[in-house]
Amino acid sequence: MAIQQIIEEISNLNSNLFQKDFLLTWEKSDDDIFQIIKIAEILKSLRESNISSKCFDSGLAVSIFRDQSTRTRFSFASAANLLGLTIQDFDESKSQVGHGETLRETANMISFFTDIVGIRDDKYIGIGNDYMRKFGKALDDGFENGVLEQRPGIINLQCDIDHPTQSLSDLLYLKNYFGSLEALQGKKIAMSWAYSPSYGKPLSVPQGIIGLMTRFGMDVHLAHPEGYDLLPKVIDKANIQSQQSEGSFKIVDSMEEAFENADVVYPKSWSPLHIMQAKSELVKNNDHIKISELEEEGLNHNAKHKNWECTEKLMNLTRDKNAPYMHCLPADISGISCEQGEVQKEVFEKYRIQTYIEASYKPYIIASMILNNRFENPDELLTQMMNNSENKRLL
Amino acid sequence: MAIQQIIEEISNLNSNLFQKDFLLTWEKSDDDIFQIIKIAEILKSLRESNISSKCFDSGLAVSIFRDQSTRTRFSFASAANLLGLTIQDFDESKSQVGHGETLRETANMISFFTDIVGIRDDKYIGIGNDYMRKFGKALDDGFENGVLEQRPGIINLQCDIDHPTQSLSDLLYLKNYFGSLEALQGKKIAMSWAYSPSYGKPLSVPQGIIGLMTRFGMDVHLAHPEGYDLLPKVIDKANIQSQQSEGSFKIVDSMEEAFENADVVYPKSWSPLHIMQAKSELVKNNDHIKISELEEEGLNHNAKHKNWECTEKLMNLTRDKNAPYMHCLPADISGISCEQGEVQKEVFEKYRIQTYIEASYKPYIIASMILNNRFENPDELLTQMMNNSENKRLL
Amino acid sequence: MAIQQIIEEISNLNSNLFQKDFLLTWEKSDDDIFQIIKIAEILKSLRESNISSKCFDSGLAVSIFRDQSTRTRFSFASAANLLGLTIQDFDESKSQVGHGETLRETANMISFFTDIVGIRDDKYIGIGNDYMRKFGKALDDGFENGVLEQRPGIINLQCDIDHPTQSLSDLLYLKNYFGSLEALQGKKIAMSWAYSPSYGKPLSVPQGIIGLMTRFGMDVHLAHPEGYDLLPKVIDKANIQSQQSEGSFKIVDSMEEAFENADVVYPKSWSPLHIMQAKSELVKNNDHIKISELEEEGLNHNAKHKNWECTEKLMNLTRDKNAPYMHCLPADISGISCEQGEVQKEVFEKYRIQTYIEASYKPYIIASMILNNRFENPDELLTQMMNNSENKRLL
Repeated sequence: MAIQQIIEEISNLNSNLFQKDFLLTWEKSDDDIFQIIKIAEILKSLRESNISSKCFDSGLAVSIFRDQSTRTRFSFASAANLLGLTIQDFDESKSQVGHGETLRETANMISFFTDIVGIRDDKYIGIGNDYMRKFGKALDDGFENGVLEQRPGIINLQCDIDHPTQSLSDLLYLKNYFGSLEALQGKKIAMSWAYSPSYGKPLSVPQGIIGLMTRFGMDVHLAHPEGYDLLPKVIDKANIQSQQSEGSFKIVDSMEEAFENADVVYPKSWSPLHIMQAKSELVKNNDHIKISELEEEGLNHNAKHKNWECTEKLMNLTRDKNAPYMHCLPADISGISCEQGEVQKEVFEKYRIQTYIEASYKPYIIASMILNNRFENPDELLTQMMNNSENKRLL
Repeated sequence: MAIQQIIEEISNLNSNLFQKDFLLTWEKSDDDIFQIIKIAEILKSLRESNISSKCFDSGLAVSIFRDQSTRTRFSFASAANLLGLTIQDFDESKSQVGHGETLRETANMISFFTDIVGIRDDKYIGIGNDYMRKFGKALDDGFENGVLEQRPGIINLQCDIDHPTQSLSDLLYLKNYFGSLEALQGKKIAMSWAYSPSYGKPLSVPQGIIGLMTRFGMDVHLAHPEGYDLLPKVIDKANIQSQQSEGSFKIVDSMEEAFENADVVYPKSWSPLHIMQAKSELVKNNDHIKISELEEEGLNHNAKHKNWECTEKLMNLTRDKNAPYMHCLPADISGISCEQGEVQKEVFEKYRIQTYIEASYKPYIIASMILNNRFENPDELLTQMMNNSENKRLL
Repeated sequence: MAIQQIIEEISNLNSNLFQKDFLLTWEKSDDDIFQIIKIAEILKSLRESNISSKCFDSGLAVSIFRDQSTRTRFSFASAANLLGLTIQDFDESKSQVGHGETLRETANMISFFTDIVGIRDDKYIGIGNDYMRKFGKALDDGFENGVLEQRPGIINLQCDIDHPTQSLSDLLYLKNYFGSLEALQGKKIAMSWAYSPSYGKPLSVPQGIIGLMTRFGMDVHLAHPEGYDLLPKVIDKANIQSQQSEGSFKIVDSMEEAFENADVVYPKSWSPLHIMQAKSELVKNNDHIKISELEEEGLNHNAKHKNWECTEKLMNLTRDKNAPYMHCLPADISGISCEQGEVQKEVFEKYRIQTYIEASYKPYIIASMILNNRFENPDELLTQMMNNSENKRLL
């Protein structure tokens, strides 16, 4: 049986996900990545076969959104629900977080019965991922000192550096599109900046894409106008990984060059790096007026590059004029959600359903992360689920 | 056994509720209505017998409240909980809904693991029910194209046209009061406007009442001052249905006439129709200042009819001076929640507990709607629940 | 086996907790208190042994926070989740509560499928506990008249008079620290006021401590500057109880005197009594501007007593210079959360982990309260949980 076969493959992996936070994909081994993907696929099959994958009888999944979110909020809630955890949102505005010490306290206070903490903190460079690590250290401290009966795992639901639940959903989408992860070897992906008039978007998606796809031998082209550089440490990582995987990594300054013969394109906006860096300085002093001014400045900067729009003409440059268009959603669609934005209406309409399917993997990726964090032998657990045919999702 | 007997009755019904949205009662067949009512009654019996009616192992019940609500919010949450679904509220203010295309996306993004979506959208004529249908079309699109593994059902938790969970709770209340649905034949119900100083209330409750009660041969009297007409298409429906059911439907302009020999009265406020229609035009342009002005104008309009108050004197006109008083709650009670309002304190106090009991059916009506939407053979499911005596709500 | 032994001890208690609200510890018998503590301990053991203590198949736990809360919110949510109830928060701002009658209605409307209601209402003297009792009367009314199928229990999550879930967690902490409840006899506890610059804190924690610890023969010293008296009725209760338990109760006006040879210290801020009383008058007229002015006045009053800070020097006055420091958290820590506050950084750091452990009992105390309220024979229920070895929290 198909599921049984994937379970056996997992048994042969040498993964190290149990009780480990998931903060950056490039901190994880290839086997870790394979296991996340494979278990996500199994959980999808189980659900589609009306087999329950509930493995928690009780326990909380705490979500902390330090930035607005609906899409990721629902994916995290769905994943928790699938496995039997109950969502409890931590609304920071009603708390005392802010000082270093207090974070230490809050982390423990909300974790007595908590199995997993999902954190989104993507607004300020140098702050988001750091917050997650401090949170983790506070949990270690509480667990080691007997405050917590269990040490909750942490899942990065988007930070300033990476967006692992997004990039892994994208990877699963590509795996299904090309038939296997092996098939990604040599495929050209264009991760391109695109114009947005709506707001200054984080760098985590493009960084997540180049930080993950360079591991699979892909020919990764990053395209952006001057001033839209990504963080150097992620660029370094992409370079190293592409060498190791015998792929390639190249930064170019035109969409055309990136799209030329691309097997897949991912045009999406992000903020100018210097604006993001300046914001991080300002937020330390709570200077929200200047932050708004910078936000405005960033949009003006974007407006110099309105021609960075994913058009039919550009799509025709791709392999067989037929490369899939990817997006983390929502996209700024010209003529629909804005006057002019990241993508022409006609292009988006053609690939709209595919972008929805791309998004549909995220709940399973998150569920896989939770399961791998909490259960030492997921292969046994999944076999048990399979064999207990009475456990149905719908009675 | 009583429950077993009702289950058998269901088996003989020719209902068509499986995987169908519940948007307007008059779109549903008589057998559909009977089945909703009967299964609500069974679920009530099961709960009172401490038998679990949990039939979902996981799954989300998403609530979308485009207007404030506590009562319906708790009824929907209770119903979902009874069957084993987890509530996930979609807070629109944190999302990108607004443009037509984006609704299509949102509907899919929040539905990956969702079994049911409850929507309240009652503020603007021509908009609320339409929103639900667009939402449904987006779900169809996602399901047919493989985005969604299942197509969530939609339940109308009050729109501009109908309030089916309210009117069906009211119907179950009347059934219990008069002994059977058949006993409603020939009974006179006074659905009357009443004065409110608090806010411009939607038309959905009176429309829901005349749109449902005319199906059971009742003598439905709708009473209101000039300018408080209901939507013509609902009036037409009431006329047709009352003919088919050999009841009657009459519009009068005095509470006295409606209350005269009435077997049941339902005095409740709503907004002037022309105010509601004007608001809908303004909201399209986001003209919220003018909407507030119109709201004020509507209240001034109401104030010309302060004598439309449900008094003891009026109640004495009813059959045997003893007709039950119904209300969807909360009522504007003169001398309690306002200086002068829909109902005299003495009248409300006499019937207060009965209005609470009327409200108590709503969670079961909603649970019945969910169960009928998701399970093809509810009679088998309910028999299974009955027979599995170990499934208790409380251990 | 340890758990089995505690269960047997419970069988011998003559408690009266079934279907009784938990509003003030001093309304409860000693056996009631013993049973709450013992069952909290059992639930902790069960969880640590990965044995499920789920005893509800469905049902809501409604939380009503009439003041901000994160800590208690998570404890209540955790407790509900452990036993199988689903949290549903009642957000008053979206409702019609306010008039006496409407409270009666709301209480019923949110309770159709509700097993427990947790209420926090601690801001105004004479109002919080009173609100809970009115809420309870409304539930009695609804239950007796057939509106509610069950009468939900009420748990005081902090009111103007008592904070029972806190004081009982503290008691469990002390029991573990000193080895038994009997060992508390003769131990000196210093419940002392301390300076806070942050906001005017309620009187419920110090009142809860003196209202509970005087029952166990402790030598309770209450210390505060002039003007910081606690409510006379609680002082009276502390006096009576300390006589009955052959302990002692003394009010002093210096931290030094209270700390001298103390076995345990609890330094924590609260508002001047006359400020709290004046606020209650103002809130009746919704005079929120004057309330803010009073708040300011209270902080100025506090500032006259900045020397009421828990320092190392003071801690060295305690028995063997080693008494445990307790706090309900969050503390105003000098040099961390404020310039100068309740406790020196060095003192807090030394006891930080212990205060977290103190807090960690709260979810179990609340779970014990819920279980005792809903199940007539908790000893049988717990034995059943123990014996059903297949019921695991984690599969």
